[in-house]
Amino acid sequence: MTDPRLTPLAAALPATVPFVGPETQERQRGASFRARLGANESVFGPSPRAIQAMADAAAEAWMYPDPESFDLRTALSRHLGVGMGNLVMGAGIDGLLGSLVRLTVAPGDAVVTSDGAYPTFNYHVAGYGGTLHKVPYRDDHEDPDALIARAHDTGAKLIYLSNPDNPMGSWHDADRIARMIEEVPQGCLLVLDEAYLECAPEGTAPPLDPEDTRVVRMRTFSKAYGLAGIRMGYAIGQPDLIAAFGRVRNHFGLSRVSQAGALAALRDQTYLAETVSRIAAARDRIARIGQQNGLTPLPSAANFVALDTGSGDRTRNLLNALTARGIFTRMPGVAPLDRCIRISCGSEDDLDLLADTLPKALTDF
Amino acid sequence: MTDPRLTPLAAALPATVPFVGPETQERQRGASFRARLGANESVFGPSPRAIQAMADAAAEAWMYPDPESFDLRTALSRHLGVGMGNLVMGAGIDGLLGSLVRLTVAPGDAVVTSDGAYPTFNYHVAGYGGTLHKVPYRDDHEDPDALIARAHDTGAKLIYLSNPDNPMGSWHDADRIARMIEEVPQGCLLVLDEAYLECAPEGTAPPLDPEDTRVVRMRTFSKAYGLAGIRMGYAIGQPDLIAAFGRVRNHFGLSRVSQAGALAALRDQTYLAETVSRIAAARDRIARIGQQNGLTPLPSAANFVALDTGSGDRTRNLLNALTARGIFTRMPGVAPLDRCIRISCGSEDDLDLLADTLPKALTDF
Repeated sequence: MTDPRLTPLAAALPATVPFVGPETQERQRGASFRARLGANESVFGPSPRAIQAMADAAAEAWMYPDPESFDLRTALSRHLGVGMGNLVMGAGIDGLLGSLVRLTVAPGDAVVTSDGAYPTFNYHVAGYGGTLHKVPYRDDHEDPDALIARAHDTGAKLIYLSNPDNPMGSWHDADRIARMIEEVPQGCLLVLDEAYLECAPEGTAPPLDPEDTRVVRMRTFSKAYGLAGIRMGYAIGQPDLIAAFGRVRNHFGLSRVSQAGALAALRDQTYLAETVSRIAAARDRIARIGQQNGLTPLPSAANFVALDTGSGDRTRNLLNALTARGIFTRMPGVAPLDRCIRISCGSEDDLDLLADTLPKALTDF
Repeated sequence: MTDPRLTPLAAALPATVPFVGPETQERQRGASFRARLGANESVFGPSPRAIQAMADAAAEAWMYPDPESFDLRTALSRHLGVGMGNLVMGAGIDGLLGSLVRLTVAPGDAVVTSDGAYPTFNYHVAGYGGTLHKVPYRDDHEDPDALIARAHDTGAKLIYLSNPDNPMGSWHDADRIARMIEEVPQGCLLVLDEAYLECAPEGTAPPLDPEDTRVVRMRTFSKAYGLAGIRMGYAIGQPDLIAAFGRVRNHFGLSRVSQAGALAALRDQTYLAETVSRIAAARDRIARIGQQNGLTPLPSAANFVALDTGSGDRTRNLLNALTARGIFTRMPGVAPLDRCIRISCGSEDDLDLLADTLPKALTDF
């Protein structure tokens, strides 16, 4: 029975989870995964300096975190060449998306995204009563023209676009994104999710314009920086918009240990560059392994590769077979994207295991 | 100018912060505090095992956290003698209060609290458009009868009560709270904030009733466990209510390192007991220092002591004088509670400094 004390909005929400975590799957199957290639984590780990900084900060964990994340924002501000007022930290991009949707989407407000794009964004839109409008991918890319057109048609408050894209790994160049920003309708905000940017070629991101009110950019320490476990993302935007997060966010919500880890990771750009090289090499190897098994790799600017199996049914069978054989992967939820299985970049050992397991898994169904 | 894309609710919210952090004050004054006695942190720190567990977990920070916090909830479930379905973790009690208010309070809904009680609860109620009704403290205690009566009068969705109380340190015994739970009106939920419970005498908390729909209890690792920095709190309630958090919470929002730290801290009940003894000794010493300086200590079941200065103006002057002399403290925001200054339990060095500084600070104004 629904609790009568819930708001009408909350009472109507499904008891859904955007993703089932690998630990949950491990508990269900009664065994650990042998390779964790499903969540686009960085198996290469964070900078050793970040690990050390977190270990050091653990001894200071009795103190509440700085709600301003001052040291981290100062370092990000210098790194990015934007002002402190252009930056707000959040509990991953997930947390920032929640705050942003809360700030801008009232029940019934229109929001536009791509069919098959990031489910957690959709979860937040549903959670605040927004009406989600989805446009199809075009040639496995999110389609800026279609997103803009639908935003015009629906009077959308938000457009979501990730560049590089998850789950396909495709990307647009900076000029294309800059043109899209020019076309954002009045009264609408482009949410540009750049979680995978560090893995992408130079020229993927348009320059940051700290006064541009049409776009908010979201980035994270979860991907190339290898710190998915500590929940540290940031939004870059025009100062008035960024300040609005302060009206709703959990000010003391970001762990002191996490802040220390992210700061040390940011300062070790050498390690980041090494990781990006390793990601690129792993992408190439995943593509080769796919090709050797008759699966077509899609070009990727992220830390994963989508391998085309030919059909959604075949992908689902393959994913289940890989799971049964101890390899955690994921796949897009909707057609036609679901003809691909999504393999996160792994270590050499992980990919040895993949090379060994994939041909066997393909004969399991 | 207010961004026209904000929802009407968000546009009407003030750009407020429930608390200004000590780091912000340090940046403003250009010097570190010599003693940090304002945020009811535990200067005694977490268990060394928790520090070690966090250092170990730092190396695994590349993995997303378990969104179910399964290991930690399992341990809490055994420790408390309740089911897994009775427990949900959050980013401190602050984060849980935000989710709970979101689930239950629609714009215009009535909520009841005490005038001078926890500001962050009020922040969340305002943030979701609730109408806050405040009843006065009675003899420096939150007043269950007045809270219940006001909830009846207003048709409140929530009643907030902390036991032990912050900022006064007062408490009710378990029988009084159990009676209050019996009196919660139909359609209303009692939010029983037990952040300071571990510091309180036996018999302060009524038994946990895992099927009671009238109350949700909130507890934390921030206080006696000494882990304010890692943001880990939990709610205990009837399973349907607890499950509802899953409709709105940031599932992957709780750091893997934090979960490991909290789990290790929970397992070290010996250290917790030692800390509680040290808190009790520090309370006694703060009371004596107050008395030696003509300030009347209030009895406290928390990890701080409220010292009565005689008036709100005198307290404000004293707080400013202590700040100027490098001691961070806080005070209640409203009369008549503001006749007290709130001093968190400190180390022996901290309290030596307090004993030395307080008489000087009292002559500064």
